[in-house]
Amino acid sequence: MKKLTLILFTLFAMGSMTAAHAQFAKAEDAIKYRKAAFTVMGTHFARIGAMVQGKAPFDAKLAAENAELVASLSKLPWAAFGEGTDLGDTKAKPEIWKDSAKFKAAAEKMQLEAGKLAQAAQTGKEDAIKAAFSATGGSCKACHDDFRSK
Amino acid sequence: MKKLTLILFTLFAMGSMTAAHAQFAKAEDAIKYRKAAFTVMGTHFARIGAMVQGKAPFDAKLAAENAELVASLSKLPWAAFGEGTDLGDTKAKPEIWKDSAKFKAAAEKMQLEAGKLAQAAQTGKEDAIKAAFSATGGSCKACHDDFRSK
Repeated sequence: MKKLTLILFTLFAMGSMTAAHAQFAKAEDAIKYRKAAFTVMGTHFARIGAMVQGKAPFDAKLAAENAELVASLSKLPWAAFGEGTDLGDTKAKPEIWKDSAKFKAAAEKMQLEAGKLAQAAQTGKEDAIKAAFSATGGSCKACHDDFRSK
Repeated sequence: MKKLTLILFTLFAMGSMTAAHAQFAKAEDAIKYRKAAFTVMGTHFARIGAMVQGKAPFDAKLAAENAELVASLSKLPWAAFGEGTDLGDTKAKPEIWKDSAKFKAAAEKMQLEAGKLAQAAQTGKEDAIKAAFSATGGSCKACHDDFRSK
């Protein structure tokens, strides 16, 4: 019985590992993907930023479109921080894998704030968007401070 | 009156130009953004490909999530092919700007097929997803053949 449990556990663990790695054929693919997701997300986040900072005219429809994209993209990069993706063309700090619980919490905080930003943008109210933009930006910065090299 | 029309037309044209360029501060930002959007889109498109080609188990929910992302991302890169973004770290061919109507049509075809793929994925039917995946892939290839250097 103990042996069977061990076999089942081993098979399960192998399955999990395969699933975790199968999304990207090579570490460099994962790195390229997560950087791309951040680039697209950052571009659309900055468009909301330009509005709430008065550098571009406020446009509720555009703000909502951009916030929807940010919320959608905020879910993507994290799966690409698998084991073995710490080396290569990346500014990712070793702390991501050393303190993975803290990194996971920071990533979840960002997704939460991005979701709130999308909700705020749905209301079309500039003040609400401004506050949610600021909170989301804070969650980006907190993670960058701890987990991204300069 | 003629003079006023000319002034209004000039102001309008200047406004349009500003709007077209304002999305990206520099040409290299536009190039980086559009490449990033293609990278993220291609990654999620390939995940559907792995399923319909039998390299990964078919999972209707995952197919729908990936197709939704592909459809959403398919709308993004085109605004980043503005004037002045032909030079730099890019495989974009001059034909994009020389034959812009054909490029626009190819971009619209891709978005149309990606939208159909998302609809097919909503049904959860593997055959429908397979056919729509193939049509979408064809629209990618057609545009790459004409407008992207090897």
